[in-house]
Amino acid sequence: MQRVEDEAASPPLGDMSVSRYTLVSTDGHAGPPAQVYRDYLEESFRVRFDEHQAMMAEMRGQAFGGQQGDRDEFKEKYDAETGDAELRVAFDSDRRNAALDAEGIVAEVLFPDADVLGAGRSASSPFGVGLGSANGAEPDALWAGARAHNRWLADFVAESPKRRVGVAVVPITAGVDEALVEIGEVANLGLGGVMIPTRWFDNAPYNHPMYEPVWAACADAGLILHTHSGAGPSEYAEGNGALPLYIAEVQFWAARPLWAVFFSGVFERNPALKFVVAESGAYWAADMIDKMDSWEGNSHALEKFGGIWNGVITGKPSDQFHEHVYFAASTPTVKDIAARHDIGVGNLMWGNDLPHPEGTWPHTRWWVNERFRDVPEVEARAILGETAIDVYGLDRVTLEQLAGEIGPTDDDVHGPPTPAPGMVAAH
Amino acid sequence: MQRVEDEAASPPLGDMSVSRYTLVSTDGHAGPPAQVYRDYLEESFRVRFDEHQAMMAEMRGQAFGGQQGDRDEFKEKYDAETGDAELRVAFDSDRRNAALDAEGIVAEVLFPDADVLGAGRSASSPFGVGLGSANGAEPDALWAGARAHNRWLADFVAESPKRRVGVAVVPITAGVDEALVEIGEVANLGLGGVMIPTRWFDNAPYNHPMYEPVWAACADAGLILHTHSGAGPSEYAEGNGALPLYIAEVQFWAARPLWAVFFSGVFERNPALKFVVAESGAYWAADMIDKMDSWEGNSHALEKFGGIWNGVITGKPSDQFHEHVYFAASTPTVKDIAARHDIGVGNLMWGNDLPHPEGTWPHTRWWVNERFRDVPEVEARAILGETAIDVYGLDRVTLEQLAGEIGPTDDDVHGPPTPAPGMVAAH
Repeated sequence: MQRVEDEAASPPLGDMSVSRYTLVSTDGHAGPPAQVYRDYLEESFRVRFDEHQAMMAEMRGQAFGGQQGDRDEFKEKYDAETGDAELRVAFDSDRRNAALDAEGIVAEVLFPDADVLGAGRSASSPFGVGLGSANGAEPDALWAGARAHNRWLADFVAESPKRRVGVAVVPITAGVDEALVEIGEVANLGLGGVMIPTRWFDNAPYNHPMYEPVWAACADAGLILHTHSGAGPSEYAEGNGALPLYIAEVQFWAARPLWAVFFSGVFERNPALKFVVAESGAYWAADMIDKMDSWEGNSHALEKFGGIWNGVITGKPSDQFHEHVYFAASTPTVKDIAARHDIGVGNLMWGNDLPHPEGTWPHTRWWVNERFRDVPEVEARAILGETAIDVYGLDRVTLEQLAGEIGPTDDDVHGPPTPAPGMVAAH
Repeated sequence: MQRVEDEAASPPLGDMSVSRYTLVSTDGHAGPPAQVYRDYLEESFRVRFDEHQAMMAEMRGQAFGGQQGDRDEFKEKYDAETGDAELRVAFDSDRRNAALDAEGIVAEVLFPDADVLGAGRSASSPFGVGLGSANGAEPDALWAGARAHNRWLADFVAESPKRRVGVAVVPITAGVDEALVEIGEVANLGLGGVMIPTRWFDNAPYNHPMYEPVWAACADAGLILHTHSGAGPSEYAEGNGALPLYIAEVQFWAARPLWAVFFSGVFERNPALKFVVAESGAYWAADMIDKMDSWEGNSHALEKFGGIWNGVITGKPSDQFHEHVYFAASTPTVKDIAARHDIGVGNLMWGNDLPHPEGTWPHTRWWVNERFRDVPEVEARAILGETAIDVYGLDRVTLEQLAGEIGPTDDDVHGPPTPAPGMVAAH
């Protein structure tokens, strides 16, 4: 038990550097315009890059079998709200930090593909090596694109290293040997994590033994594994309802790599490895966590299999889950927050998805109050930043100092609601 | 409001034909030994049938990459408990009805593949055309197998037509033209439903326009569409954890056809069509029902798509869902029952999965009390049989009369718990 004298020695409540929230967004996106990517590519890939860009321009609007509604009006509204129609915040270091300051965020974790509106502002990783799960391009082009993005990202991180964690793109489905080389490069570049394709499509699934060296290399280098939602079902485009079917399934496809890794015992063999699932919500994990412990020895329905784990996972599965798995649940839903104790409060991290329009930029301060107002302070602080500081090994002293200047106060987070600004109310 | 006089005119509480529960199992399995199937096959397919049976015998134990535990002990226990090591209940009409009587069940809906222990007792549909989703065999063999099973099933139903609804196997992924022919046959055979492959594997997904004539033919013939869980992920077998990965995903794969049909507007175009998802639980649907109404007009996260439904579904999606979709949630879990109001009490049906070992045979009476004890009577009656009577158009008078003799009483269902018999306690 803490003694009263210790409490008296704590900083007074008015000390802003302590009482303000240290907001860390575990889901941000960064990437330069196409011309800049071109310069980061090795020369031999630049003609193919131009061709791929031209093809993408032609295919614009063809996603989901062309079944989307009119998006121009939304883009206009969003550009007016952010005041950044050129999406400079995706690659301009000062502008990025100014946006973070305005949002009250001290640091963020950076994924690729800042522009997903597909409206001509290209800040998307070359050859679709990012959120598109490296589907459809030639392996050598994918690796060239990955190298280009990772080098650019390292430069961008270096402009403000205390506030940025770079997550490299490493398309392991395009070749394990190349992946091992790139993981070595990524570690040297000072990046903090590795994003693997969220979908393996027709390649080997992640429970296959061929990937074991990849998991070991990430664990050895202290690189955190990531998947990020985006790649959805690939087969619906020729039929009706391709868009609602994408929305219905996208979280499943983003969750699948986690199960493939977890249920095949990868954490059993790599005790230092961590896995973060980004922008895929988290509430659905509560159900799986609840179930996994009961599959063996407690379920008549599964008894016929003779045994479920058969040594693949020893000990209590949920314990291993809580030790290794985190959710970068950007703009968490009411359901995500309500399920926090079942997921593990310490396994849930927040993000604002800057600069994606489904995120909360530029109204994050309002939105944090809206979603976290009634969450107890210690839990809100954990989800909004403290857990991320631990997981990514951030410089707590520096960030708390910055939070003392820009971070939301207790009252900002837990005070009475204010009217919803702009477009951000419904989530 | 009902007048007191009406209540006085109601049958007295002691009238067993009314107060007993009319239990209808919406998930049973039936099929004869291989030799009988052979006789139902057209002669030209019998050599291939023998070869396929031999191949299956060789592959026994190889499911999930051979990663299951020892199943012999379980099989011995189960056979001792049921007293039916030869699984005669799967095809012997009198034995089937005796088992139903003992369980307190007046009628059941019959799917294929009674034997899934794979221990040499073959009551599995020819060429894997049943729960295996017709994966891997030649289309002509699949259709021959479907015809053989459907003919056998029609004969089995004819032996006790008031107590049996036959669900035909119609592997629509093996050819739409052949499917339309078989749907015509199935209607003539007096079967009540059609089971389509739960997985389409590499074939066109069910939102594809090519299947539209199938949906229309089922609607016209009054045949209810079914999927039944069983076919799982196909790609994990070469890696670790294939069995837990199967368990983790099997409900998703069984749910997918429902979304593909529903979200592509099939019910919009076929107002008479009904869809039943069997042995896949139901609690997970509550989440999707909750979400689908909010996708359009109420979600900042999805606003960027411009519009979600775009005319594919008009009106409130959940209303259409509740009008057309049912869950044959055999041996429903605590979660399924707890979610009944979110799923729709009138959309949830019970089953005992006879004779599968993950079901509750031969302890269904005990288990119904265990799971439904605290469910209000009107809701318990709906889930346990009343809804199934309506959905499948069963002969209520005959079944209530039979229930008066064999059905559980109010006290059986809602009375105090008794010790768990045999192997059935944990679900």
